Amino acid sequence: MNAIINLLKSHRSIRKFTNEPISIEQREAILQAAQAASTSSNMQAYSIIHVTDADLKSQLAELAGNQAYVSECPLFLVWCADLHRYAEVAHLHVDTPITGNAENFIIATVEAALAAQNAAIAAESLGLGVCYIGGLRNKPAEVSELLGLPQLVYPVFGMCIGMPDQEPLLRPRLPLEAVYHENRYAYNAPSVDSYDETIRDYMNVRTDGKVDTTWSKEMAAKAQRPRKHMKAFLSSQGYEVE
Amino acid sequence: MNAIINLLKSHRSIRKFTNEPISIEQREAILQAAQAASTSSNMQAYSIIHVTDADLKSQLAELAGNQAYVSECPLFLVWCADLHRYAEVAHLHVDTPITGNAENFIIATVEAALAAQNAAIAAESLGLGVCYIGGLRNKPAEVSELLGLPQLVYPVFGMCIGMPDQEPLLRPRLPLEAVYHENRYAYNAPSVDSYDETIRDYMNVRTDGKVDTTWSKEMAAKAQRPRKHMKAFLSSQGYEVE
Repeated sequence: MNAIINLLKSHRSIRKFTNEPISIEQREAILQAAQAASTSSNMQAYSIIHVTDADLKSQLAELAGNQAYVSECPLFLVWCADLHRYAEVAHLHVDTPITGNAENFIIATVEAALAAQNAAIAAESLGLGVCYIGGLRNKPAEVSELLGLPQLVYPVFGMCIGMPDQEPLLRPRLPLEAVYHENRYAYNAPSVDSYDETIRDYMNVRTDGKVDTTWSKEMAAKAQRPRKHMKAFLSSQGYEVE
Repeated sequence: MNAIINLLKSHRSIRKFTNEPISIEQREAILQAAQAASTSSNMQAYSIIHVTDADLKSQLAELAGNQAYVSECPLFLVWCADLHRYAEVAHLHVDTPITGNAENFIIATVEAALAAQNAAIAAESLGLGVCYIGGLRNKPAEVSELLGLPQLVYPVFGMCIGMPDQEPLLRPRLPLEAVYHENRYAYNAPSVDSYDETIRDYMNVRTDGKVDTTWSKEMAAKAQRPRKHMKAFLSSQGYEVE
């Protein structure tokens, strides 16, 4: 429909990057785009940590589950939900305790996500590729320690950015009718069933016939490896989710 | 730096719309862009509810705190975190209980946000304006009841989309150095102090001199009106955040 929508629709995660560095101008454009995202009551309840130190990148790559591209990518950003700043500035005027209650947790998590997605799109508009790194939540306490995160700040995910050195297939999404509802929520089983075959075909092509799976099988496998530690970790950072 | 980054940087929330309808083609482009956003292990753990019913829109507008633009906008979408579909498909293969534990809560909330932000950008690329409606979390149980949300689904926020009938000022953001850190988190008090004056000037212009406030004063005011009900509500939807 237009070039921007085409860009959005052609997203795929990039996990292999050339050595081409990202210029300061590119980085600043990406960060300015991030800051322009919507924010609840202008709270701006997120922080971005740019990891430039090679040792630190290696440690984070390992903590994320030995994802080498975390250390290899030219620009690695950690997107944090951040209520610390909000608490600092509110306390200039009032004593009201600021807690990571469920509502504040949602706000800060969403704000990190909205800013990050703007950054991802800005990067892609510059011909760069990106990959979200949820794997930082494998070892969130260790990550927080390494990055010096204070109370009320937690790492939601990382993001690798760099010039793509691969051209992955576009991963097909669920049919729209599976995620779209009119006026009332209505679970659409047939749309999900048909997607199982879509993913079987996709994985077959992607792995040269080596992997025979479906979407529901992948989801079942995922259900058996939950990150059960997150509740205790979040509590340790001041988020009252337990 | 390019047209896309310029679009991202020129975002402002739109709360007044013309009557111009949104075509089916526009809506589909917006929804396809949403679906193309990154998703953790391809979970696609969100749902979009398009509210077309006028009565329902009015009720939601009232529940959101009498925000008339919710009922007046030509396209109102509710973005839900959705683990129901994930549970349904995983249970085709395994009995593992799927819970809204902290990790799954983060995934589903982030996925709704990433998809929504893509939709927002797609809409803006079509010359439309958008406004996130966090106010749905004022009365989340009532909203969930009206929309028929099952367990493991919760409304993260709404979104108004339509042709802008206003040209609001661009709201200045924090200086980059307030939200940006290199390698380690470091709270930057001076950058926040300077922003207080930026917001004073902005509010002065925006309100024709009627409002004298600063960012920290706004944050202090916000701290005194928490949405304390969210924890209990989320628990009632199957999210184990208490």
